[in-house]
Amino acid sequence: MLNYRTDLEKMPSYDGVEKDYKIKVNANESTLNLPPLVTERVFNRLSHVSFNRYPSEEYYSLVEQIAKNFSVAPEQILLGNGSSEIIEKIFYAFGGGNKIVYPVPSFSMYKIYAKAAEAEGVEFLLDEKFDLDVEKFIVQVKNSGANLAVICNPNNPTGNFLTVAQVEKIASSIDCAFLLDEAYIEFYGQTAVGLVKKYPNLIVARTFSKAYGLAGARIGYMIANSEVAKMIGKTFMPYHMNSLSLATADIVYQMRDEFVPRIQMLIAERERMFERLKKFPALEVFPSKTNFLLIRLPKADALNNYLESLDIGVRFFSASPVLGNCLRISIGTRPENDEVFDAIKNFLEAEQ
Amino acid sequence: MLNYRTDLEKMPSYDGVEKDYKIKVNANESTLNLPPLVTERVFNRLSHVSFNRYPSEEYYSLVEQIAKNFSVAPEQILLGNGSSEIIEKIFYAFGGGNKIVYPVPSFSMYKIYAKAAEAEGVEFLLDEKFDLDVEKFIVQVKNSGANLAVICNPNNPTGNFLTVAQVEKIASSIDCAFLLDEAYIEFYGQTAVGLVKKYPNLIVARTFSKAYGLAGARIGYMIANSEVAKMIGKTFMPYHMNSLSLATADIVYQMRDEFVPRIQMLIAERERMFERLKKFPALEVFPSKTNFLLIRLPKADALNNYLESLDIGVRFFSASPVLGNCLRISIGTRPENDEVFDAIKNFLEAEQ
Repeated sequence: MLNYRTDLEKMPSYDGVEKDYKIKVNANESTLNLPPLVTERVFNRLSHVSFNRYPSEEYYSLVEQIAKNFSVAPEQILLGNGSSEIIEKIFYAFGGGNKIVYPVPSFSMYKIYAKAAEAEGVEFLLDEKFDLDVEKFIVQVKNSGANLAVICNPNNPTGNFLTVAQVEKIASSIDCAFLLDEAYIEFYGQTAVGLVKKYPNLIVARTFSKAYGLAGARIGYMIANSEVAKMIGKTFMPYHMNSLSLATADIVYQMRDEFVPRIQMLIAERERMFERLKKFPALEVFPSKTNFLLIRLPKADALNNYLESLDIGVRFFSASPVLGNCLRISIGTRPENDEVFDAIKNFLEAEQ
Repeated sequence: MLNYRTDLEKMPSYDGVEKDYKIKVNANESTLNLPPLVTERVFNRLSHVSFNRYPSEEYYSLVEQIAKNFSVAPEQILLGNGSSEIIEKIFYAFGGGNKIVYPVPSFSMYKIYAKAAEAEGVEFLLDEKFDLDVEKFIVQVKNSGANLAVICNPNNPTGNFLTVAQVEKIASSIDCAFLLDEAYIEFYGQTAVGLVKKYPNLIVARTFSKAYGLAGARIGYMIANSEVAKMIGKTFMPYHMNSLSLATADIVYQMRDEFVPRIQMLIAERERMFERLKKFPALEVFPSKTNFLLIRLPKADALNNYLESLDIGVRFFSASPVLGNCLRISIGTRPENDEVFDAIKNFLEAEQ
């Protein structure tokens, strides 16, 4: 028997297992691959990558583009393998015996990142409608003496949002570090990146995995005060990023205007689906500023099984006490959404 | 002022900064990009990758190939972003207040990984010729009560090696976990992977970054007892790997026979360079089973500057007390090696 780090045995694991579906709307991915024009330029760029060399220029090229776009210094930006790695390392940087406050329900990995960082995860409960009471959140962060407060905005898996003014209220009221996870921000449009200049405790994490259809490439970034970025940068090991993904994201970021029509389509589809689902008295659908909708109904388990039988994959939070009877459905293309809607309709009608 | 994890401020950083050179022999990369036939198949494979989906099948496809090649179960294999991430996570799994023993001089990151894992790094000093005394190593590991012992074989940056019998002697004599870092094994040929079946404490780490010319893709793997792999697997966060690199490595591994001629060329070049450098009484060159040679001479600093002035990049260990006056030179193509040799020759002649 080997001796491991204390409690490694008890480390919880993420319960999202990837599986292929005819309609895969369970992981908030873009259901569309890259636009053909972008793909062409990506492959052209990849053909110039030195596969045999450790990455370097590819990292800085992307950092400089992002810095320019947000009018911040390159030193304020760090890249990671998805915003996942960014968040993991931020938890590590502020963890180690300290407290980290995050809302529940929210991104289920926060709990695991806290555990991995040997931090004490402090849960802040959202209300029955999954809204976050800003004043109460501030009080809990202050009273807990936490090193780090985390909010996902708009929130996954509930879809609701804080305004930039609410984010500013939090940033200005707490003294500890404040991580704002903006994984879904492109579907909302109101980023708080502009506040980083004013509030050196604010760290904004972003990803290419959702609106920019690069979940497979694993590219995320953070924007923070340069001193804070320097400290968090110490937690990343050398060569953690790869040239292929960096070069791909570099092109995608250059061509991000190409993604505007599909983001607009997705927002329109989300609103259309929301209006249609709202008409069913048997289920509750929550307003969303993301690329997914959360629904709640007593027979969520049965609906999940029914959708599964039709080869439609949605996310069912069976293990979560706060998300009882909830299903999260990512928004896909119009035909996909129609098929999902019809399936739900058929299920509900058969139940009557 | 934000509060970080204790001692984050003091976290040492890796001193290898990538820079472009006309002849870049400072990072033990392959100086050749992928063979054209492999590149063609890689791009064909990449054109079938769903950039918009989280990776899954790409991970298992590569794992199954590796498992088949070594006649082990897929559960015995974990992939990482380079063997760097593999080693980082193994240190984490066994660290956390515990001791980790590793030789010095060896891969300079061991010290940093130990620190990041909040482990106590215990240095085992190699002798004047950089050889590792197996008996003494075993005694130090046992006496220290370490959770993990680490050896890089063949050793970076010294080039020397242990036989499989010596590795077995260590594996059978110590009770704690034993990580064998085989980053350069293809240039030596005597892997200890076969011992994993017999010694459940043995973990072998491998990489695609050196012999397989994929430093830019960041792909490494480990082979261990399945129970051990399961525990270490808990330390990897979901979606840490990207589809592009996984798909690339999958093709490279399928086509690994294509790399045999260049590995043989490199070994022949290493031996040729060794014989030529050995003739200079002013420098000491160490026998190597890797893709680099370590040389020692009183004017290492001046030689490094001279090579730099010719746009030749080698690795100078200015910060290391145990590698005083040493330079590490990766083996490149024959014309590159000749140019490096001529430069050293000119330097030494001018010194006389």
